[in-house]
Amino acid sequence: MSELPPHETRAEWRHKLYRIIYLADTPAGKRFDLILILTIFLSIMTVMLNSVTHLGRDYGHYLSTAEWIFTGFFTIEYLLRIICVRRPVKYIFSFFGIVDLLSILPSYLSVLFVGTNDFLVIRVLRILRIFRVLKLVKYISAANVLLRALLASREKIIVFLFGILTIIILFGSLMYLIEGPENGFTSIPRSIYWAIVTLTTVGYGDISPKTDLGQAVASVVMIMGYAIIAVPTGIITAELNRTIGEQQHRLNQRVCPTCSKQGHDREALYCDACGEEL
Amino acid sequence: MSELPPHETRAEWRHKLYRIIYLADTPAGKRFDLILILTIFLSIMTVMLNSVTHLGRDYGHYLSTAEWIFTGFFTIEYLLRIICVRRPVKYIFSFFGIVDLLSILPSYLSVLFVGTNDFLVIRVLRILRIFRVLKLVKYISAANVLLRALLASREKIIVFLFGILTIIILFGSLMYLIEGPENGFTSIPRSIYWAIVTLTTVGYGDISPKTDLGQAVASVVMIMGYAIIAVPTGIITAELNRTIGEQQHRLNQRVCPTCSKQGHDREALYCDACGEEL
Amino acid sequence: MSELPPHETRAEWRHKLYRIIYLADTPAGKRFDLILILTIFLSIMTVMLNSVTHLGRDYGHYLSTAEWIFTGFFTIEYLLRIICVRRPVKYIFSFFGIVDLLSILPSYLSVLFVGTNDFLVIRVLRILRIFRVLKLVKYISAANVLLRALLASREKIIVFLFGILTIIILFGSLMYLIEGPENGFTSIPRSIYWAIVTLTTVGYGDISPKTDLGQAVASVVMIMGYAIIAVPTGIITAELNRTIGEQQHRLNQRVCPTCSKQGHDREALYCDACGEEL
Amino acid sequence: MSELPPHETRAEWRHKLYRIIYLADTPAGKRFDLILILTIFLSIMTVMLNSVTHLGRDYGHYLSTAEWIFTGFFTIEYLLRIICVRRPVKYIFSFFGIVDLLSILPSYLSVLFVGTNDFLVIRVLRILRIFRVLKLVKYISAANVLLRALLASREKIIVFLFGILTIIILFGSLMYLIEGPENGFTSIPRSIYWAIVTLTTVGYGDISPKTDLGQAVASVVMIMGYAIIAVPTGIITAELNRTIGEQQHRLNQRVCPTCSKQGHDREALYCDACGEEL
Repeated sequence: MSELPPHETRAEWRHKLYRIIYLADTPAGKRFDLILILTIFLSIMTVMLNSVTHLGRDYGHYLSTAEWIFTGFFTIEYLLRIICVRRPVKYIFSFFGIVDLLSILPSYLSVLFVGTNDFLVIRVLRILRIFRVLKLVKYISAANVLLRALLASREKIIVFLFGILTIIILFGSLMYLIEGPENGFTSIPRSIYWAIVTLTTVGYGDISPKTDLGQAVASVVMIMGYAIIAVPTGIITAELNRTIGEQQHRLNQRVCPTCSKQGHDREALYCDACGEEL
Repeated sequence: MSELPPHETRAEWRHKLYRIIYLADTPAGKRFDLILILTIFLSIMTVMLNSVTHLGRDYGHYLSTAEWIFTGFFTIEYLLRIICVRRPVKYIFSFFGIVDLLSILPSYLSVLFVGTNDFLVIRVLRILRIFRVLKLVKYISAANVLLRALLASREKIIVFLFGILTIIILFGSLMYLIEGPENGFTSIPRSIYWAIVTLTTVGYGDISPKTDLGQAVASVVMIMGYAIIAVPTGIITAELNRTIGEQQHRLNQRVCPTCSKQGHDREALYCDACGEEL
Repeated sequence: MSELPPHETRAEWRHKLYRIIYLADTPAGKRFDLILILTIFLSIMTVMLNSVTHLGRDYGHYLSTAEWIFTGFFTIEYLLRIICVRRPVKYIFSFFGIVDLLSILPSYLSVLFVGTNDFLVIRVLRILRIFRVLKLVKYISAANVLLRALLASREKIIVFLFGILTIIILFGSLMYLIEGPENGFTSIPRSIYWAIVTLTTVGYGDISPKTDLGQAVASVVMIMGYAIIAVPTGIITAELNRTIGEQQHRLNQRVCPTCSKQGHDREALYCDACGEEL
Repeated sequence: MSELPPHETRAEWRHKLYRIIYLADTPAGKRFDLILILTIFLSIMTVMLNSVTHLGRDYGHYLSTAEWIFTGFFTIEYLLRIICVRRPVKYIFSFFGIVDLLSILPSYLSVLFVGTNDFLVIRVLRILRIFRVLKLVKYISAANVLLRALLASREKIIVFLFGILTIIILFGSLMYLIEGPENGFTSIPRSIYWAIVTLTTVGYGDISPKTDLGQAVASVVMIMGYAIIAVPTGIITAELNRTIGEQQHRLNQRVCPTCSKQGHDREALYCDACGEEL
């Protein structure tokens, strides 16, 4: 291939790089992806450990160095991605393009401002690439079923959230009037926070009703929260049921290419009428 | 239209107003509704902010003025609604008529009594008009499906709540006997409050069992609460499943007006047999 | 009917009483049942109020008197029930017979022992008669559907509870080893209590992990508890789905008595083939 | 059978022992299994009671003796199991083989190291043999249905857990930045622990947001946790629905051996067409 003009060679080099960085269909590409996932994982660990007081004090210097090395690696990767992709602008403004940029920015900003380093934890979003790396077609199909069910029940969930919101504001305000600032319900927004903590059955106990009437109203909120959770569950289950049912139905409509028999089992590899492969 | 008698002109003016205030099918009507929603939202914000101690102290004057302006606007709107509707009495005693009145009353009562202003938060119920404003037919249909499922499972939910109530009273009283006032279970009603907090898995921790026997009984209540939640969920899911299934079934029975073929897909726009529009 | 011998008259009187006390098909029987439910409700209220310290101190005398009156009424009712029923022994050892006895016993025992009065709250079980009183056939049918679904999923729920129990004992013991008595995990039984509080997502916070390893293990328990709750819900929903489906199926098999057409709608009042009433 | 050579007799003796220890089809085998379950139960009780401070102090000597007796019994049982089974190596490295070894090891290690005795609680895993002992075919079939449903929804649950993990890390880090160490969020790992406690609706309250912004973000996490729980429930319910439906379908396809009629009821004992036994 030495006859090719230098420009062509460069395009070829770019394409090779593209296949390594963006695709995972070559041994080199797979190796690159695995190293990338590992590096992302290690860099998140570094940010986390650095936030632990005693570790940050004793090993802060080593952890900072490690962070800079990771940032350097990610910066080179980011630049290579821009160079070897055909439409750099499209990549830069894609979801992963923005995440990749946000994953290196805090390090450079930390030279100017103190404390921005903690934002490096956004690198965790990069790890979502793992689905592509492991070529987990089954997982992507599973995620699609979930997403389709969630999208199909979109309106019902919005109506539900709107109802929840109205209940929370009304009961939050009511408790502010009943309990008052002396029992920890210092303002309506804080009472609404209490209503959310109670209705979702989290129940920190940092604010809790002290008066008899307040405890009675709180009991109503709790039982509502306990019963209402059935609604989103019912919505999503019914949709999932239907989505899986449709998928099933479609699979059952597989037609044998030899004898045209329809309605084969999901796991069937051969036609049960003529024995030919499906 | 100058030939019309003055009385007719007045009726016409009333009808115009009616279309702006009650309907949302003209640009003016839509603009009115959007301003209304915004005003409701801002007035709720004002009430909430006023309840925050330091804000109420520093900006209380401005917030009170704002509240009076909102009250004035809502009062005018309320009067206009009465004037332009055909049957004012029916409106006044309708759900939204009462909510509209309750949304302005606390302001006027605050001149006579202290603290009634906080009740203004009831204005949040006015925001339920949003469904009409945004002409969210899809959302109303979704809300209907939810309501139908809840109504259909009415009896099962009442039986369930009745069972829960019996369990709560029995276990609450039992814990009062076991733990006693020295461990925070000061009375049977308070012990019942504890039983509700525990069974619904809220778990504030303001009252918690201290004795070994009490913790054993509490463990039983917790596991019951954890398992029992499956019952309302099961009820509503099964009903939703059926409601959506029926809806589906009805949609699938759409008949092509050209060739009379039945059983078209939900999203189908054209008949898949003759190609004519459905 | 004056010709009847005295013995016959007595049997008649007993039958009349039986119809009033045990059945609810006469105006007198209905009135008796409503008064009974009201009395049960009031007597439970009395026991509860008596347990509230300040009320018990100020109005204890009145509440005790009320309790004795209720006990007297229930004692007379209990004796009448034994007298007028055909097989007294069967009644005495039936569920409601035992509950009726337990509802009066604590009052008499309180003469001998202190504090037995609080057990009177067991009277709440008597209120279960309400289903019979209100002749709520629909509710009883709803309760039957729930019970059938629960019974049908009996084995799955037992397997589930057995699995939960093993997880709780293992993780409870593990946390005892990790956290130790100095962090509130004073013994294995208490650590198991913590595991139940955590797995069921109640989370009082009276015992909570302090060490890093303990918090990591606790996180695993929490996510398990959060995910595992899907299992009983799934079991009961699937069974309810089937139970309701079968009920539906049976209703759909209604046959028109005129033209024998099958498969009518649930709400159908007339046959959709020949127009005759179903 | 005295003609048999000594070697044969030994094999016979081994086989007899094998049937007693491993199978439960003879009265002796059943008796052995029941005694074993009882011993396991008692030995777990002993370990638990020994961990209770005041009991360990007063009765520690007796409890330790009991533990050694149980360990002795289990050691003999372990050796007998190795002797009488055909392939000892396979048993030793099987799940129950390892559990059996781990159930006696801590006692012997406690001679060398202090505190290993508490690990004896691992004996609880031995109790899983109970399913075999009671010959609970129905329960094993129920467990299989549950397992099949869980396995079938494997991919969806992994995608779900992965999503949860990303949300937890992101919100945990966000709260570390908002609340900071002065409000208990001392490091990112601890903030992630808080996020897990909140999202799973456990809500200990040992760490809870103090700032207004923190409480707002916490509210979002709580409502997410409250709504997201619908997803695993929906997944498992939909799968269970399908698994039970398939089982049902298979049962409905029972064919009458006399008249070949298909589609009999689950509970049907006789063919409803010709009356012959199924």
